[in-house]
Order: sequence, then C-alpha cells, then structure tokens
Amino acid sequence: MATLEKVMLPPELEAQFQELARGVEEVLPRDEFRQKLLEAHNKKIPLRVKAGFDPTAPDLHLGHTVLIQKLRQFQQFGHRVLFLIGDYTAMIGDPTGKSETRKVLSREEVEKNAKTYKEQVFKILDPTKTEIVFNSTWLNTLKLEDMLQLTGKYTVARMLERDDFAKRYAAGQPISLVEFMYPLMQGYDSVALQSDIELGGTDQKFNLLVGRDLQAAYGHRQQCVMMTPLLVGLDGVKKMSKSLLNYIGIQEAPGDIYGKLMSISDELMRLYYTLLSDKPVADLEQLWNSIAKGRVHPKQAKADLAFEITARFTSAAIATQTAEEWNKIHNPKERGLPQDIPEYRYISGAQLVAIVKDAGLAASNSEARRMIEQKSIYRVDTDGSETAMDDYKVTVTESFILRAGKRKFIRLVAT
Amino acid sequence: MATLEKVMLPPELEAQFQELARGVEEVLPRDEFRQKLLEAHNKKIPLRVKAGFDPTAPDLHLGHTVLIQKLRQFQQFGHRVLFLIGDYTAMIGDPTGKSETRKVLSREEVEKNAKTYKEQVFKILDPTKTEIVFNSTWLNTLKLEDMLQLTGKYTVARMLERDDFAKRYAAGQPISLVEFMYPLMQGYDSVALQSDIELGGTDQKFNLLVGRDLQAAYGHRQQCVMMTPLLVGLDGVKKMSKSLLNYIGIQEAPGDIYGKLMSISDELMRLYYTLLSDKPVADLEQLWNSIAKGRVHPKQAKADLAFEITARFTSAAIATQTAEEWNKIHNPKERGLPQDIPEYRYISGAQLVAIVKDAGLAASNSEARRMIEQKSIYRVDTDGSETAMDDYKVTVTESFILRAGKRKFIRLVAT
Repeated sequence: MATLEKVMLPPELEAQFQELARGVEEVLPRDEFRQKLLEAHNKKIPLRVKAGFDPTAPDLHLGHTVLIQKLRQFQQFGHRVLFLIGDYTAMIGDPTGKSETRKVLSREEVEKNAKTYKEQVFKILDPTKTEIVFNSTWLNTLKLEDMLQLTGKYTVARMLERDDFAKRYAAGQPISLVEFMYPLMQGYDSVALQSDIELGGTDQKFNLLVGRDLQAAYGHRQQCVMMTPLLVGLDGVKKMSKSLLNYIGIQEAPGDIYGKLMSISDELMRLYYTLLSDKPVADLEQLWNSIAKGRVHPKQAKADLAFEITARFTSAAIATQTAEEWNKIHNPKERGLPQDIPEYRYISGAQLVAIVKDAGLAASNSEARRMIEQKSIYRVDTDGSETAMDDYKVTVTESFILRAGKRKFIRLVAT
Repeated sequence: MATLEKVMLPPELEAQFQELARGVEEVLPRDEFRQKLLEAHNKKIPLRVKAGFDPTAPDLHLGHTVLIQKLRQFQQFGHRVLFLIGDYTAMIGDPTGKSETRKVLSREEVEKNAKTYKEQVFKILDPTKTEIVFNSTWLNTLKLEDMLQLTGKYTVARMLERDDFAKRYAAGQPISLVEFMYPLMQGYDSVALQSDIELGGTDQKFNLLVGRDLQAAYGHRQQCVMMTPLLVGLDGVKKMSKSLLNYIGIQEAPGDIYGKLMSISDELMRLYYTLLSDKPVADLEQLWNSIAKGRVHPKQAKADLAFEITARFTSAAIATQTAEEWNKIHNPKERGLPQDIPEYRYISGAQLVAIVKDAGLAASNSEARRMIEQKSIYRVDTDGSETAMDDYKVTVTESFILRAGKRKFIRLVAT
C-alpha cells in the first residue's frame, strides 16, 4: 500500500484493488490492471476473468481454492469469471506417447468431470457470474492453416526462455516440438475468450504471458495476469498436496476440516486468513491488532477461521454443530482429563497395534498386542464414555482420545 | 565404383545403380537404396520417386533439369515419379508476414503454373510414369490434432541442428516457430505419398532426411534420399542462375541453346555430359577415351552435346538446322575470314557505340561514334554479305560477326 501508484483510483476502487491484490504473488502489469478496473467501472462493462483447469476428475483441497477465492472476489466486484476446462488435450491425448498415466478422456467423461467441478467450485463461485467454457469448442475447429498462423506469432528463442525448457535444452534432454504447442494453445484460449485478466499459479507465469503476447499479435487488447501463491500445507512448510498428506479436502467430513484447521500454527493461521477468508483486509488488520493487544486469543481467531471454512463447504448449522463437538473433545477440563494431552497423528486406516507401538505406548509390537488383548487400551468418546479396544487387528480411521492403562492419554488425529 | 558394396546386385541392376548414382552428390543410405532397387526388381513393384517443386510460375533452365534428368532415369528403369507441387503454403502465404515478395496464389494460378510445369518437364519426363500431385490435397485436411501428432514426432534440438537455424539461433536472430513447421510439412508429404526415394538439391539434405525420420515415426517404410548437385553455369565457376546471366533457359531459341553450349569450356562439357546427357556411363567413358587419344576432337563432342540438348527441347529436325546455321557462322574459312576471330560477350540490348568502345575497337565513345557515322563498322552475315551499321544509337540483341575498318573482326555474343 506504500507503492506510489501511477494510475489513481477513487477510494472505492482503490479498496477493491487492495482486496484483489491481497495475498497475490504478482500482477502484471500492475498499472494496466488498475487502469482496467477503472475503465470497467466507468464504462460499466464487467471484466472477463479467465482461469484454466485440468479436465481430470477434480477432488479439490484448500490449496486449489486460493485461486477460486480470488475469482470469487472478482465476482463480488461485479466481474465475470470464465472457468475454462482444458478438455481439448485430454480428449486427444499426448502425441509423444510419453505420458502413459495421462488417460485420454471421452466427451462423456469430460462432461462428468465438469459436473463434479461445478458441484465443488459453486460452493465458492457465483454461478450467475460464471461461464464454464471448454477449449475444445474452438481448438477442435482449427486447421493446419490456423496453426501455422499461430506458430508464426512466436519465436523459438522466446519459447526456450521458459525455465523448464531452458534447463532441459541446456542439459541435452529432448524437448518434443509438440511441447512448444501447448503454451501456444493455452495462449490462444485467451485470444478466443478475449479475456481481460488471467489468473494462475506462479508456476504458470510463462504460459500466462504467452496469452498476453498472442492477444497483441492477433490485434486484441492484452490481458493482465495475476499469479496466486501455492498454499502451504498443514505442516507449515511444504505446499499443500494430496501426496504429502498435509491437505484439507473440501469434500472431507466437517469434523476433519474443522479439526485440521484447529491444528495449524498461529503463523499459518494468518496466511490462511489472508488467502482463504472472506473477511476484508481491514477486518484482518483489526484482528491482528486485537491479538497483539491480547484482546483476542489466537485460538479464538483460529476457531473463527475454522468455522468460516467449514461453513463454506457445508453450512452454518453443520459448522456450528462441528465446532461444539470439537470443543467437547478438546475441552478436557470438563471431563477430568489432563489439560495437555499429547497428540499423535497417524495415517487413516492404520492398524491399532501399530498405532499403540508407534505412539510410544508400548515398547514393541508384541507388547502393544498384549496390552490390547488385556483390555488396557480404551477409546474415550466425546461424552466421556470409554470403550475397551481389545481387537489388535482392528484398523482405525477416526480422531479420538485413547487411554492406555490408568492415566496415560493420547489424542489420535487421523490424517 | 571401387566401393565395396554390402548389397550385391545382379549385373543389370548394378548398371542401373551406376546410372542412377552418376553425377549425384549423395545417396543416403546407399545400401538401403541398393536394396530397394533389388526388391523393386524382384517383386516387380516400381519405386515411388518423389521430388518437390515450388508452385510459382516456372521458367526452367538447364540447372533445374539436372534433377529432372535423374527422375527420367528412374522412369527409364520402370519406376514412378511423384512430381509434387508444393501449392499448400503458396496458397496460404507466409504467416509471419515477413516475406512480402512471396505472393499468395489462387487455386487458378496454381493450376495454371502446374500446366506450364507440365509443358516444360514433359520434354524430359514420361507422362505415363509421372503423377503430378499437390500437397494441398492432404495438408488442407489436417486438423490441429494431426498437427500435434506431427510435432510430437520431432524434437527442438534436432530442428536446431539444421545449419541455417543453428547459425541464426547462435547469432541471436529470431526464428519463428512456423519455420519449424515447414520441414515437418515437407516431411509429412513423404508420409502421405509413401515415397521410396526422394530427390532434391544438396541444400535440401536436412529436409529430405526429416521426411525419412517422419516416415519411421508414422510406422512407414523409410525413403532413401538422393541429392543432385547444383549445375555450374556457363562461366564455369558459379552455379547456373538467372540473376547471374550464366544460364541456358529450356525455352530459349534453339540457336541460343546450341550457341551457348558451344561456348562452354572442355572441362564444363564433361560435367554437362555427366549431368545432362542421356548417353550411358559406358559411352561417356569411351568418349573421354577417344578424346584423350585424339580420335575425337573436343569441339565435335561439344557439338554432339549441343545437338542432344537442343533436340530435347525442340526436335531433331530443328536441332539439325540450328547446327548447320551455327556452322555457317562459325566456319570462317569458307568465307575468307580470319580463323581465330576474338569473341566479345555483351549484354543483349546494349548500344552499338558502347559495344564498339568496350570491345576495344575504339579508344573513346566519341571515336566509336565517329567510326560508326563514317561507315567503318559492318555486320557480317552468315551468307557472307555485309551491311554498314551507321546509326550509333542503335541497340544490339543478336550474335554476329562485326567488322571494323578493313581487317579487324570481332564475334559479338549476346548474353
């Protein structure tokens, strides 16, 4: 906010700009973007905001929603979202034949996946301001002639400037010519859609700028590009991803969404607020201020965030109930349990015997097995009731408090 | 002929191979080509011999006919010629917009040019063994999908190995991506045509080999490639070309074709025999031998070649008459002229006064003018008659003997 802007905006639009720029890695070119906001406002013509998605079966986690939240902000300010499903290449496959894992999808599968996308993203986006578009619509109609025109608008050297291409070329690793076609097709999507803004991850910077270049080459107005950061996962270090098991899926059980969010560090909480919350920038500033002055406990702030996100993907009623249940389990004072029960995270579906051993309650698997068979291991439920777990073969998938012997407690968190 | 061949051929085919390899710069791969000759012979399936030509209005000179003579040899041995007119790009133009000189041609113009081609090449080729094909036939039907498949079959690094690309890339000069598409399309022509052999100039080596690579990538049998040399022009040094004025056009007047051929050096005559004559290799060996032993005068050998080429583009009767006329002019003894009249070559259309001065008959332009006006300059015609040339402004376009003063003769040769 200390930046001296070249394009001055009236206060209302300046506030919009601050919201849109919040948490974003880069907006290029910044002045041109501010100018677009101004013109759209003056001419009362909504901006066309493009974002591209893979047509594979989606199962979104919070990491994906950073960008979708940003699209939602644009909608809140009256703009249109072009939700582009890149079905073309998925339907034709990879001509190099290298990518064996990439399945060629039928029209039917693409439609089905698009439906699943809608179910998920319309929990965030406003359907009345969203256009779901498929790039096969225009790419399927291109002839060799059109492709030659397209390839005539970009040079080999500029393509080889892309970081991954540059590295592979320098290392003598083969780059198929078809790989040069993908950024061009993605850029051509912007030409076909006449997008004003394109959103993408920071790893998409090169491709997003190709879109901007191609629009100019076709004599169109150029899009601005906005890059959202990758969300850090629950571990606070690595990017959120399914394979790293540090994610929160938006279709997970409300108790899991809520519980996982309650488990993050205070530092991560601030980042998640910035990137995921609907609270305006000003409210966030005030919140940090209140925490700093001790007027709000960080745990309360975390609970508010967990509630907001849980409600987003379920409902306010479910989120309220989830919060209550969570409090019951995690308010040990009420149930005469020790206040600082250590937490043990395990991979959902693990065997009880392994958990008991790995959590340090038993020295060996055989000791763990003995303890279980001798009814020394109890599940403590939210209502305070206890159940002996005496089948050592049982697999566990939930989060709950476990008692071993008389007074040894451990909080199991399924991940 | 001293090469130890890996693929042995029966004598008849070995002789064919020697004829086909005669004057050729390179055959790749040599063994595979010999193998193809053998198989075609055994299976009685003619080889499909491809050669590509620009669809611009053709006005062929002997340089172009080196390759066409080679095609004719293939036909004489029973093979089929695929005479490919590359009309596709001419009809769509250059998408970079850089080549302003390259005119976009209509279907009508392409057809018209093709007709002109036929009129010229069928003076050499056998129409019954020639298929005239247009690459727009298949390239026009390609969709983006097909193009992606095609680009998936070649790497960036290999394309950058092409000499001109390598140099431009190293020098930081832009290479448009569309330029990478041309070798691919040309190569795809070989896929579409299922050619067994492709002929081209030495400068086409890279592109010819792309065709071979692509055939393999599409699971087809690979073509062999044969590169014919560029013909040296009348000056004996530079390649024959219109702009260098050292050419013999196949549509020129018979007297010019014959006369120009009679003017070449003995050394060049041997090269022209090798690349242009229909005489078998064995006959040529014998001819060199006879010349070496003084049994045949080089001038006679040159006259035979001039007759053969003139007859090819006109008729035996016209060639006979042309030779007779030429002999009348060039047999000075019969007309009491000195035996060794120096020759002076001038550019057709020059002013007489300039010729007289530049040929060294006068010391200055004013002296030349005076000589002309005072009737000191005569044209000596084939029948021995002389005509005074007394208009110093006259321009000259023909070849004839000129007399200056009493006994100074010069042979003017228009170029």
